[in-house]
Amino acid sequence: MTQLEYARKNIITDLMKEIARQEGLSVRDISQRIKQGKVVILNNNKRKIEKPCAVGWGLKTKVNANIGTSSDCTEISDELKKLRIAIEYGADTIMDLSVGGNIRKIRKQIIKYSSVPVGTVPIYEAAVLASRLKGSFLKMKKELIFDILKSQAEDGVDFFTIHAGINQRALEILKKYRRILDIVSRGGAILAVWMKYNKRENPFYEYFDEILDIAYKYDITLSLGDALRPGSVLDATDKVQLYELKILGELAQRARKRNVSVIIEGPGHVPLDQIRKNVILEKKICKGAPFYVLGPLVTDISMPYDHISAAIGGAVAASYGADFLCYVTPSEHLRHPTVEDVKEGVIAARIAAHAADLAKGIKSALNWDRSISLYRKRRVWKKQIELSIDPSKASAFRDTFRPFDSEVCTMCGKYCSIKLIDDYL
Amino acid sequence: MTQLEYARKNIITDLMKEIARQEGLSVRDISQRIKQGKVVILNNNKRKIEKPCAVGWGLKTKVNANIGTSSDCTEISDELKKLRIAIEYGADTIMDLSVGGNIRKIRKQIIKYSSVPVGTVPIYEAAVLASRLKGSFLKMKKELIFDILKSQAEDGVDFFTIHAGINQRALEILKKYRRILDIVSRGGAILAVWMKYNKRENPFYEYFDEILDIAYKYDITLSLGDALRPGSVLDATDKVQLYELKILGELAQRARKRNVSVIIEGPGHVPLDQIRKNVILEKKICKGAPFYVLGPLVTDISMPYDHISAAIGGAVAASYGADFLCYVTPSEHLRHPTVEDVKEGVIAARIAAHAADLAKGIKSALNWDRSISLYRKRRVWKKQIELSIDPSKASAFRDTFRPFDSEVCTMCGKYCSIKLIDDYL
Repeated sequence: MTQLEYARKNIITDLMKEIARQEGLSVRDISQRIKQGKVVILNNNKRKIEKPCAVGWGLKTKVNANIGTSSDCTEISDELKKLRIAIEYGADTIMDLSVGGNIRKIRKQIIKYSSVPVGTVPIYEAAVLASRLKGSFLKMKKELIFDILKSQAEDGVDFFTIHAGINQRALEILKKYRRILDIVSRGGAILAVWMKYNKRENPFYEYFDEILDIAYKYDITLSLGDALRPGSVLDATDKVQLYELKILGELAQRARKRNVSVIIEGPGHVPLDQIRKNVILEKKICKGAPFYVLGPLVTDISMPYDHISAAIGGAVAASYGADFLCYVTPSEHLRHPTVEDVKEGVIAARIAAHAADLAKGIKSALNWDRSISLYRKRRVWKKQIELSIDPSKASAFRDTFRPFDSEVCTMCGKYCSIKLIDDYL
Repeated sequence: MTQLEYARKNIITDLMKEIARQEGLSVRDISQRIKQGKVVILNNNKRKIEKPCAVGWGLKTKVNANIGTSSDCTEISDELKKLRIAIEYGADTIMDLSVGGNIRKIRKQIIKYSSVPVGTVPIYEAAVLASRLKGSFLKMKKELIFDILKSQAEDGVDFFTIHAGINQRALEILKKYRRILDIVSRGGAILAVWMKYNKRENPFYEYFDEILDIAYKYDITLSLGDALRPGSVLDATDKVQLYELKILGELAQRARKRNVSVIIEGPGHVPLDQIRKNVILEKKICKGAPFYVLGPLVTDISMPYDHISAAIGGAVAASYGADFLCYVTPSEHLRHPTVEDVKEGVIAARIAAHAADLAKGIKSALNWDRSISLYRKRRVWKKQIELSIDPSKASAFRDTFRPFDSEVCTMCGKYCSIKLIDDYL
């Protein structure tokens, strides 16, 4: 049985208890929200995760870090370093998006060493294998896709991004309502091109029930991908995007009927004033399914600081109810990320998630800010730094210049407002 | 006459024309908004500024960069490097907050080399001089403060931060409604301690009319400082902050009556869900006066990434109508900023300002995103990079790893969605 099925039968599982403890909520709350499809636990039933993770309504906002090889950068050890640093700086989940090198070997290593849930985009491995075996991903067969889904499930992948919403009708709509950047999803582009070349329906859409069979068997959460997300703020919230969202809403209902958990992936590039609408639409159309946003970037011009653009969009989205933030690194739109980029990306997304949690009134988030502010008042630098989002970098910053008076910092020196007030008022 | 006075008399000045050209608006629009106090031009009439700057309703969101020595770091050349890099990366104004070394010499150098308006916080120089001449800033006299105001005005300072809202009544309220961090404004703390020690009213409040005389004479904009801004998200939007805002609203009216332009400084540390309310209150209480926000930081835990926390808060504030963002550097709360920190701070604030401008529907902002997205579609890397917020860093990022196919980047390699769609669809 899946966690969703247990919840529907009012059976409390150990995993639900563990999540309730993590979130500081009652297990009944967790189980009720799972039953309603508003909370999902990301955990393949083949594997025991050291730090399990749930996403959804009323929970702490979670952060995902994408890692994985590209066709130009195939070194496994680099990706394992990224895995370690992402988890060290607080990524709640990891997605392995490898498309270069020995993809299965990389995935198995990442799963082996990851203390958090691991997700994948199975179409990548299918496309790469078809390309290697038959010379082009255009020759990919349905059977290959399903073999990959099964082997990834067997390897223990906890959630799959499935681009099932980009069907033939969606491509017609895309043709009619042109955009600046038509398709910016890698999986979406592979499928669109395949569909055109083969004159076939999207296999993820056509055989969605068979995907549900696999997801049910392993209790894998389906992350319904938005292949048609906007790739420029000028394309945001258009008819193409909204048509796909409607399809994702229908697929979400079908999944739930089969006791399969779903989350919905969201844009992409969205101007600040449209973010609230995007969250409200997703929650309405997908009946409260957790919303997993990719950024969103609030501008197209922020290279190589897209992590900041995404932190702005992610914080705003999560404050309106998005549940899960996919990080963006400073390398976005420019290069395969380095280990340092992964760290910067995770930290920016964690700040965004935490800022939203303060706005959502999550108690543990408020307590964190209260603690650090109390140490700040008392100028207990060691504790302030320990509690900061990046203690080692904060400590290095403080050590750059030494203040004359060790109680203050070199910014205000003897005019430190906090010390002045403490000494005189 | 001041620009406000000209506008009231329906006289169009060259400066108004220049601003209208910069903003892509009609000079009539600019003059009307100046008349209403919703737009101000920052420009001491003693000096010709290479790139003049106006802030306010319907204009592009502006960014200020604070530089200046501290008691621990007094090297002028470092501050001049910061000046150059801040302007290079798009700061619209500079504030010289020096409290160390030869303050007047530093200020004169900064004004000499700055192509943009320069602001100061005159209480700093007064406090430092009193401390040097009489052993303590507590012995600062009203005469000294006014001498400083006059000499700074004569030197060409374009806007003054004046902490006139923290009066004796405000201190009583602060005592009654305690906070985690009582006063985090350097100028505010100096004044509060001085007021208590000397059992006197705040001289900026008591002699506000005399300040208006000086501001009028030089057409200096008064930036009414929020000495009582919250220093923790848990202190935000409290009675103390709102009392001071009410006083600032009254002072703004008095200034306008005397044809002196004003802007209002705002918090500080504010959780995401309270930012909109803060902007609405300021606009209402201060009758549309431009709002100059210090961040706001949306969490207290983001050291040494407070520039990201401030970018989130600044973008949201500006999208709701804040007009002017004071940058925050990665060094905030830790140390005197380095040149690199200044650059990072300016870029983060510029991303925030631009994201808000997209939300506000500012045409030139939309055109910028459209251009870069069109080059992205065509994979014209050189142009994309040239148009990005930091071309040299973006270029270095792209050069780190060279893609096999020069049309794409090393992230997606041959699975570049944009290229796939272009080649096949």
